[in-house]
Amino acid sequence: FNIVVLPGDGVGPEVALAAQRVLNSIGDIYGHRFEFTEHLIGGAAIDATGEALPEDTKAACLAADAVLLGAVGGPKWDGSPVRPEQGLLAIRKAMGLYANLRPLQVSPVLAHRSPLKKEIVEGVDLIVFRELTSGVYFGEKTRTATSASDLCVYTVEEIERIARAAFQAAQQRRGKVTSVDKANVMETSRLWREVVTRIHAEEYPQITLEHALVDSMAMHLIRKPRDYDVILTENMFGDILSDEISVLGGSIGLLPSASLGADGPGLFEPIHGSAPDIAGQDLANPVGMVLSAAMMLRHSFDLEDEANSIEAAVAAVLASGAVTADLGGALGTVEATRAIVDAIR
Amino acid sequence: FNIVVLPGDGVGPEVALAAQRVLNSIGDIYGHRFEFTEHLIGGAAIDATGEALPEDTKAACLAADAVLLGAVGGPKWDGSPVRPEQGLLAIRKAMGLYANLRPLQVSPVLAHRSPLKKEIVEGVDLIVFRELTSGVYFGEKTRTATSASDLCVYTVEEIERIARAAFQAAQQRRGKVTSVDKANVMETSRLWREVVTRIHAEEYPQITLEHALVDSMAMHLIRKPRDYDVILTENMFGDILSDEISVLGGSIGLLPSASLGADGPGLFEPIHGSAPDIAGQDLANPVGMVLSAAMMLRHSFDLEDEANSIEAAVAAVLASGAVTADLGGALGTVEATRAIVDAIR
Ligand SMILES: CC(C)[C@H](C(=O)O)[C@@H](O)C(=O)O
Ligand SMILES: CC(C)[C@H](C(=O)O)[C@@H](O)C(=O)O
Repeated sequence: FNIVVLPGDGVGPEVALAAQRVLNSIGDIYGHRFEFTEHLIGGAAIDATGEALPEDTKAACLAADAVLLGAVGGPKWDGSPVRPEQGLLAIRKAMGLYANLRPLQVSPVLAHRSPLKKEIVEGVDLIVFRELTSGVYFGEKTRTATSASDLCVYTVEEIERIARAAFQAAQQRRGKVTSVDKANVMETSRLWREVVTRIHAEEYPQITLEHALVDSMAMHLIRKPRDYDVILTENMFGDILSDEISVLGGSIGLLPSASLGADGPGLFEPIHGSAPDIAGQDLANPVGMVLSAAMMLRHSFDLEDEANSIEAAVAAVLASGAVTADLGGALGTVEATRAIVDAIR
Repeated sequence: FNIVVLPGDGVGPEVALAAQRVLNSIGDIYGHRFEFTEHLIGGAAIDATGEALPEDTKAACLAADAVLLGAVGGPKWDGSPVRPEQGLLAIRKAMGLYANLRPLQVSPVLAHRSPLKKEIVEGVDLIVFRELTSGVYFGEKTRTATSASDLCVYTVEEIERIARAAFQAAQQRRGKVTSVDKANVMETSRLWREVVTRIHAEEYPQITLEHALVDSMAMHLIRKPRDYDVILTENMFGDILSDEISVLGGSIGLLPSASLGADGPGLFEPIHGSAPDIAGQDLANPVGMVLSAAMMLRHSFDLEDEANSIEAAVAAVLASGAVTADLGGALGTVEATRAIVDAIR
């Protein structure tokens, strides 16, 4: 399997290394060979080439079997004409990664670390399907001396494909989809609601579908997060809501994501950012990145047992307390990764 | 004082009545005369006139000293060509209400009802300054057979005036403003950040200013809500974030808001919606609307003592447990209002 690794900025390189170590041990045990090729993205790429997504990085990603990404961005590039995040947005678009999957399960051993009461977060098991290649992220932008604008566009086709992805996931889960929009204000949201309602009626009538407004959803996700199974939403709302719920499990450092297209390679990255304040100090939690690698094994390579093996090892390690400082532990990134590798063996 | 009352839909009429009762008792004690004139808005107006904001309602609001609004909307008008919310958006625009103030103080007696841990929410005291007459709410919308769009526009002037309002409020408070945007993606956010930074440097250098991205802010508001004093943000982000934090205090039914323009009357409404499921059953919590009336006394009529009197009465009543069902109490809207009136006397 040819895997392109984009370490990126801040803690990105440290967690990307952790994922490679874990994958190598999976390879040894199950007899697979993972070939890793590193390429530049984000601030690191800007420093080296002036561009946030150099051509050869893009070409390598498109030719790979899958892509692992650490993190991009940091205050270092604040005044820069090219921003690191442009590299992330450009690779999502270039690879056609329209479906961003962000699963959240609150581990019983970590529920006490949540800012929410234990009885509210215990047993939460949901997944966000965020549309990733359209909306206000990719619409036309203008700037004059006295004003600025951003255009949010959605096409029927863009909504259909992410809706289908969410309904299909719900079939394998508890059979419920909550579609989030702002239909009382936005035209794109009204189209969103119509299309989701139609796809549901025509293709997935056995799934339970509910619609929620983004503002009340921001409330419900804190009051009763256990009520949700699959959450389906557009790019910007997905960005905000998935970060909001990332606190439920006690640390954002735990959470993985998968970004998938119609075909072609997927991209796998932790939810957390580049965390420049702790970069290079062996402090980053490797779990979000390692679980992203597990999602890669499942979604890109169909290696279900191998993915389960990583997830079980992570659960065991979390239960044992062999964790990094964000979870109140004493281990560094390298040692926490070693604990996961040991648990796999 | 000529006050236009817009009861609106759902529980709106019940809470609007509660506010009038409380204001009448304040009038008796302090020797003021509040004249209330009711007008139609939202679904009630659509049913009666076909329009969400009839001309005479608009004219009455513009001529009033202040406006009290209950709530608008409900599933009854879901398929309707005119939506109730259009009335709310239209009156905000017509009155030029660019500054929406949403204060949140977590009452120590109610902290245990929060979904968050007591030690996290106790002592929270913040106020959101949400821009209310621009952004994606009021930009051009398009619709074709295969797509839809919403335009988000901000002018320098629109950002300047809400920024000044937030900085001025911070001067009377703990001296800190957190400006929220999505500057790594949106052009309007980059303009927002520039303008806020400039107004700060030129006019309010003694205030502490920090910038936060909306996604990480959605996280921080749950992890460390006590860190915030004044939160300054654009229309849509303000909608989402203020609903998110509304759960911190234990019930959204507690929270007031004030919408103010450059001059002319302000509009005062609770944060909660029309709650059609409990409408007409004497179940609604009157506190959010009553505290909105207190904000009216303070901001529109400069009656600081009278506003304090209402706020002290509400605090006493909450402490005594004379509350509605959303707070675990046994009182109806009418009785809970009477308890507040009794406490004022
Ligand atoms: C870095 C930023 C552009 C990005 C986004 O907003 O999509 C990030 O917040 C994310 O969620 O992956
Ligand atoms: C009803 C709706 C249009 C409104 C808004 O989004 O502004 C409401 O959610 C609010 O926050 O006052």
